[in-house]
Amino acid sequence: MDIQFLGTSSGTPSTTRNVAGTALRMQDERGWMLVDCGEGTQHRILHTSFSLVSLRAIFITHIHGDHCYGLPGLLASAGMLNRTAELLIAGPGAVRRFVQGVLDSTELRLPYALCFVDVESNPDIDFLDEVGVHATTLSHRVPSFAYSFTERTPVPRLDAARLDGDGIPSGPLRGRLQRGEEVVLPDGRRIRGADYQLPPRPPRKVIIAGDNDAPDLLAGEARQAQVLVHEATYTEAALAKVGPAPQHSSAGRVAAFARDVGVPNLVLTHFSPRYHGTAGDGNALAELEAEARACYQGKLFLADDLQTYRLGRDGMLALLP
Amino acid sequence: MDIQFLGTSSGTPSTTRNVAGTALRMQDERGWMLVDCGEGTQHRILHTSFSLVSLRAIFITHIHGDHCYGLPGLLASAGMLNRTAELLIAGPGAVRRFVQGVLDSTELRLPYALCFVDVESNPDIDFLDEVGVHATTLSHRVPSFAYSFTERTPVPRLDAARLDGDGIPSGPLRGRLQRGEEVVLPDGRRIRGADYQLPPRPPRKVIIAGDNDAPDLLAGEARQAQVLVHEATYTEAALAKVGPAPQHSSAGRVAAFARDVGVPNLVLTHFSPRYHGTAGDGNALAELEAEARACYQGKLFLADDLQTYRLGRDGMLALLP
Repeated sequence: MDIQFLGTSSGTPSTTRNVAGTALRMQDERGWMLVDCGEGTQHRILHTSFSLVSLRAIFITHIHGDHCYGLPGLLASAGMLNRTAELLIAGPGAVRRFVQGVLDSTELRLPYALCFVDVESNPDIDFLDEVGVHATTLSHRVPSFAYSFTERTPVPRLDAARLDGDGIPSGPLRGRLQRGEEVVLPDGRRIRGADYQLPPRPPRKVIIAGDNDAPDLLAGEARQAQVLVHEATYTEAALAKVGPAPQHSSAGRVAAFARDVGVPNLVLTHFSPRYHGTAGDGNALAELEAEARACYQGKLFLADDLQTYRLGRDGMLALLP
Repeated sequence: MDIQFLGTSSGTPSTTRNVAGTALRMQDERGWMLVDCGEGTQHRILHTSFSLVSLRAIFITHIHGDHCYGLPGLLASAGMLNRTAELLIAGPGAVRRFVQGVLDSTELRLPYALCFVDVESNPDIDFLDEVGVHATTLSHRVPSFAYSFTERTPVPRLDAARLDGDGIPSGPLRGRLQRGEEVVLPDGRRIRGADYQLPPRPPRKVIIAGDNDAPDLLAGEARQAQVLVHEATYTEAALAKVGPAPQHSSAGRVAAFARDVGVPNLVLTHFSPRYHGTAGDGNALAELEAEARACYQGKLFLADDLQTYRLGRDGMLALLP
């Protein structure tokens, strides 16, 4: 599973970070998914390998503009690329009203259908081949959600040592055993895949959360997840000055939650422009990072725009070069 | 008068050109105006000297997304910068419905007031100090307008030769004469500014047009204008293939109009992505340029994103370095 960040700023874009947008692709799949679509997301996509034609679904965490104002332009551009496949848009109910209102008021006609799912009443999205998606309610000024993406069926592993011990030859035959078939060996033995399959590894699971001042709401979901992507808009000190009204999280609060729940990989994003620095200034996020590292011993990342992270089958996350 | 192009693409952004947006500033004024606001306009503004706090007014030519989908994000960002001054938004009536609909559906609260002017019923906008603005109806799939910006009161010129001949000293005294005051000279003579003022030069006038397949509609406006900024989406050959339905102009058609009406400076923009080429490819627009040059002998420019043009008091336009 690859995660590419298209925008990592909170509220407004800066010269180094765009507003929210995150692409998710299952390895070996042509299609991909988008979580949030702030203004300029389609511009960022022009600098990736993703195409608006192969986009499978868009998940909007909440209705604030820095998470959805890029939707109308992205939909229009997909139309100009002659997309014909239906596009799923999941989010709180306000998303449908926003999109439908813009289509109507700006006379935008799309050459493909939109399928809206209101996650406030339908939190489980089961009709994507590659993943099951679950929406968890968060705490913010408007209805806000985290999306959990869980691999549907990890490929079973074969017990290679036992196969070797029983003198079962390598090659296509082992592929059939891996798929659970019964096969007849050249020497006449009849064997069953099920007898050589190891318990499947845990399915990979990634949570990409929207704006949220109560990470604990993700406790149930995060226990089985390998990756949590969560906003860390401020440091704890800045958050104390700003006050609770905007309902955002600090880096420290999110890191403490990740430690407590035992999630092995944590990616922080959605940084207030005060932390952006300038291009090439590698140290702009130092305060946020130090606060998070002080209480979290897992693999910690602070996302930058256009970075791609890969979640391996071993459940560990790595930044791709 | 300075004109800075923020986006010069038609329909969708590419890696080299954003969708429509043009900034206009009267020299010596702190405020500025924006014509059209495609998605990503606020991102382009981050690379200019313009501030969303000193933006005086936004003029939208028509309701198509590549000319207005950047409005909600720009308004939101101006709010986050604590703008308090009322902002004028002029355009066809659909613009107000679009903006109001997005404000409502996305719960966007602005800390400043919006003042909408529907140019379909009020084509003359007279309440800006620095310029008078007139909206001319164009021909497109939806109501589309060109905006003429006319300098309000050119500073009167003094007849320096006559002043010298009459032995009137240089210095602050001449400034008072220029403003039309009556002054008493050191030698006791009493003279009046009006007697030494030359007829004022013609006011500078710039037309920035929206999408339009009938440049002739601008004949009345363009006769007194020094600059016409007009879309040239295709070459004549490409336009013939595309057919008349999109209702765009070719470079040749616009250039022929500019020649016939005698406008001395023509800037083409809004180029179909087929002509964009890649960054550093200076020749991508060669076809469009050749077609326009074949029938127009005035000063011709094909706009690039972030270029600034200055219209001097002599009525000639120059690209700033």
